Amino acid sequence: MFRINENFLNLSESYLFNQISKKVDDFISYKPVTDLIRLGIGDVTLPLPSSIVRSMHSAVNEMSTIETFRGYGPEQGYSFLRERIAEVDYSQRGINVSPDEIFISDGSKSDTGNIGDILGDDNVIAITDPVYPVYLDTTIMRIGKSGKILLLNCDEERGFLPELPNEHVDVVYLCYPNNPTGTVMTKQELKKWVEWSLENGSLILFDAAYEAYIQDENIPKSIYEIENADKCAIEFRSFSKNAGFTGLRCSFTVVPKSLMSKLKNGSEVSLNNLWKRRQSTKFNGTDYIVQRAAEAVYTAEGQIEVGEMVNYYMHNASIIRNSLLMKGWTVFGGENSPYVWLKCPHELDSWAFFDQLLNNCHIVGTPGVGFGSNGQGYFRMTAFNSHEKTEEAIRRINTNY
Amino acid sequence: MFRINENFLNLSESYLFNQISKKVDDFISYKPVTDLIRLGIGDVTLPLPSSIVRSMHSAVNEMSTIETFRGYGPEQGYSFLRERIAEVDYSQRGINVSPDEIFISDGSKSDTGNIGDILGDDNVIAITDPVYPVYLDTTIMRIGKSGKILLLNCDEERGFLPELPNEHVDVVYLCYPNNPTGTVMTKQELKKWVEWSLENGSLILFDAAYEAYIQDENIPKSIYEIENADKCAIEFRSFSKNAGFTGLRCSFTVVPKSLMSKLKNGSEVSLNNLWKRRQSTKFNGTDYIVQRAAEAVYTAEGQIEVGEMVNYYMHNASIIRNSLLMKGWTVFGGENSPYVWLKCPHELDSWAFFDQLLNNCHIVGTPGVGFGSNGQGYFRMTAFNSHEKTEEAIRRINTNY
Repeated sequence: MFRINENFLNLSESYLFNQISKKVDDFISYKPVTDLIRLGIGDVTLPLPSSIVRSMHSAVNEMSTIETFRGYGPEQGYSFLRERIAEVDYSQRGINVSPDEIFISDGSKSDTGNIGDILGDDNVIAITDPVYPVYLDTTIMRIGKSGKILLLNCDEERGFLPELPNEHVDVVYLCYPNNPTGTVMTKQELKKWVEWSLENGSLILFDAAYEAYIQDENIPKSIYEIENADKCAIEFRSFSKNAGFTGLRCSFTVVPKSLMSKLKNGSEVSLNNLWKRRQSTKFNGTDYIVQRAAEAVYTAEGQIEVGEMVNYYMHNASIIRNSLLMKGWTVFGGENSPYVWLKCPHELDSWAFFDQLLNNCHIVGTPGVGFGSNGQGYFRMTAFNSHEKTEEAIRRINTNY
Repeated sequence: MFRINENFLNLSESYLFNQISKKVDDFISYKPVTDLIRLGIGDVTLPLPSSIVRSMHSAVNEMSTIETFRGYGPEQGYSFLRERIAEVDYSQRGINVSPDEIFISDGSKSDTGNIGDILGDDNVIAITDPVYPVYLDTTIMRIGKSGKILLLNCDEERGFLPELPNEHVDVVYLCYPNNPTGTVMTKQELKKWVEWSLENGSLILFDAAYEAYIQDENIPKSIYEIENADKCAIEFRSFSKNAGFTGLRCSFTVVPKSLMSKLKNGSEVSLNNLWKRRQSTKFNGTDYIVQRAAEAVYTAEGQIEVGEMVNYYMHNASIIRNSLLMKGWTVFGGENSPYVWLKCPHELDSWAFFDQLLNNCHIVGTPGVGFGSNGQGYFRMTAFNSHEKTEEAIRRINTNY
C-alpha cells in the first residue's frame, strides 16, 4: 500500500487558529452572543485604501479586453512590482537589493513553509519558543520530530528574545517585530545574530512581515540593514499587515544572489537559483490583479494611505498596552508591533484565560501556549480591530478584572 | 555549513518553458521579428468573459468598504465556491463529491507539486513518458533520482497511453486529456487503472485540468465517474484553461474522505485530513476576488461564456489537426484536447524542428523531447491562439514544408 508522510502524525491535531475558531463556534452555538470582539487572529479589518481599489478595478478591466488581457505571468512576479519594491523598500533606505533577488508570492505563510523545499533534511533547525506555529509545524512535516529541531528558550526573564545557541545550528527562524510577543531586535542585537551566522555557516530565515509597525528608528526594518546579512539571510515580507492584503494574498521573499551554500565537494550553490527553480516548478505566479494592487502601495498616495492604516492599528496597540499597564498587568510588545503580549492575570494558564475572556467578556484572544510551552501563562491580543471595539474590549476587561 | 536539498542538483538546468522563452528571447534580440505566433506554452489568449469581470468588480468594491471587507478566508476556500463545484461539476453529472472534499487553491501546478508533502518518501512513483514536467521535477526534488521513479513508456505504438505497470508501484500520476499528447482515456481504459490501483493499494493522482475540452461523451471528465475511484484517487481541476484564469490563479483538488492509507501498525489515516492539515499550515487561501470570479463560472451566463471560449479554442485545434493530417503528417490529440501532438516532419528531432519553425515560420511550439525521451521526434502545438493567427501559422507551415 502507498505510504503517507508519517511526520504528519507528530503534529498536534490541528493548526492553532483552527482550534480557536472551533472553540468560538462552539461557544456561539451554545450562547448566541452578538457582541463578540475579535482580538485573536492577526487579521486586518480596515478596507483597502482607494488607490489600491482603483488600481484593481483598472487591472480587472485590462483582463476584459483581448488587447490587454494577461495570462501566465512570470513565476517570480512582474518586474513592475519587483522594481518598485527594490526601489522603495530597499534602495531608498540605503539597502542594495536588486529586482532579481525578489520573488513575489501568495503569502509569507506559503513561503516560510515552502522554503524548506530547498534545504537539506539533515540541517539542525533552531526555532524560538514561543513561535508562529507555521515554522515549527512545517519543519516537523519535513524532517519529523527528530533531534534536529532545537527550541530557543525565549522567556520573560530574557525579554522574550533568544540567546545565541550553544549547540551547532544550521538554520534559524527569526521573526522581528515578533509574532506573537511583539518584541523587537535592535540593530545591535540583530548584528550579533548575523555575525554568529557568518561565523558558523548558518542560514537565517528572517520574517519581517511586521516591519511597517516599527516606530523606533533604531530598530532595523530589514535584516539587510546589517552588514553582510546578504551572505547569510533570506527575508520574508508581506502586504498582509501593512496594506490589508490578508484576503488578497501577496508577499515577497528576498533571496540574495550572494547567498551560497557549499556542497561536500566544495562547490558553491546559489540559493537564489534554487528558489527560482522551486518557484518556477511548483508555483505559477501571483494573481496579476493583486500584483497591480501591490504596485499601488508604492505610489505617493498609496504610501500615505497604508501609513494611515498602520497608525490606526498602532493607536489600538497603545490603547491595549497602556490600559493593561495601568491595571498593573505585565505587558510586552505593542510599541513597534500590532501585537500585545501579556501575562495572564491571577496566574491563570493561557487556555483558562482564553475561556474566561470568551465567556465573561466575549473577547477572543490567542492563548500564548499555542505558540509554544514558554507561552504558557501568557496571552496575545492584536491591534487589528476598530478603535471603538478595542476601547469596548478594554472596558469589559476593566469591569471583569 | 547549512545544507541544501541536493536533489535539486539532479534536475535539468531549467524548467522547460523557461528554456523555450530564453530561446525565443535570444532569437528576437538577434532578429527582431514582429510576426511571431505563439503555439507553445499552453496559455489562453481570450479575455475574461463579462460575467466573470462583473463579479470581480463587485468583489473589489466589497473590499473597499469596512462593512463588506474580507480578510483571511478559509484555507480550504469559501463554501460559496466549494458548494457550486460540488453541485455543477459533480452532483449534476451523477458524481457524489461533497464540498468538504474540495480544496480551492492557486493552481494545479502548485497542488500537483505540493501533494508530495503528504506522501511518504519510500513510495515507488510511476510517471508517464512523455509527461507534464512538473510531476517529474517535483518528485525528483522530493525523493531524488533514485530507483523509486518508474517511467511508463507511452510511445506511438501504444497510442501514447501507458500500460499497467508490471512492477510494484505505489503512486501514479495520470493526466487525461493528456498534456502534452492530447490523448484521452476511455471509461474502459480508466476503469482498468482504478481496478489495478484498488488491487495493489496504489494511489492515482489524476490531473483533469483539460476536462472542459472533452467532446466525446464516452470519455470520463472526472475519475470519480469510475466506481470506487474515491477509494484510490485524488483529482486536480483548474480554472486556467476552461475559464481563462491563467493570470488569476485558481484551481481545486478533490481528496475524497473515503481515501485512506494504512500505517504499518494497521491503523488507517485519512488523506483528506492530511491535505487539510497541509493546506491550513502552508497556505492561506486563494484571493477572495478570484474565488468570486470562479463562482461566476457556475452561473448560467458564465457556463455559456466559458463554453464559447472552449469552442473557440477547439476550432483552432481542429484547424491544426486537420491541416497537418491533410499534409500527410502523423498527428495525435486535438479532438478532445487543446493540444495537438505531431511527429516532426523529415525525421527531424524535436529541438531541430523547434528551431526550424522559429527561424523559418516565426512560430513557437514546444519540443516533444522536453516532456521526456519518448517525446523525441515529436512536437506539441496548442490551440490557444486566435483563429487568424492559427490559420496564418498553418499557411506558413504549408509554405515551408
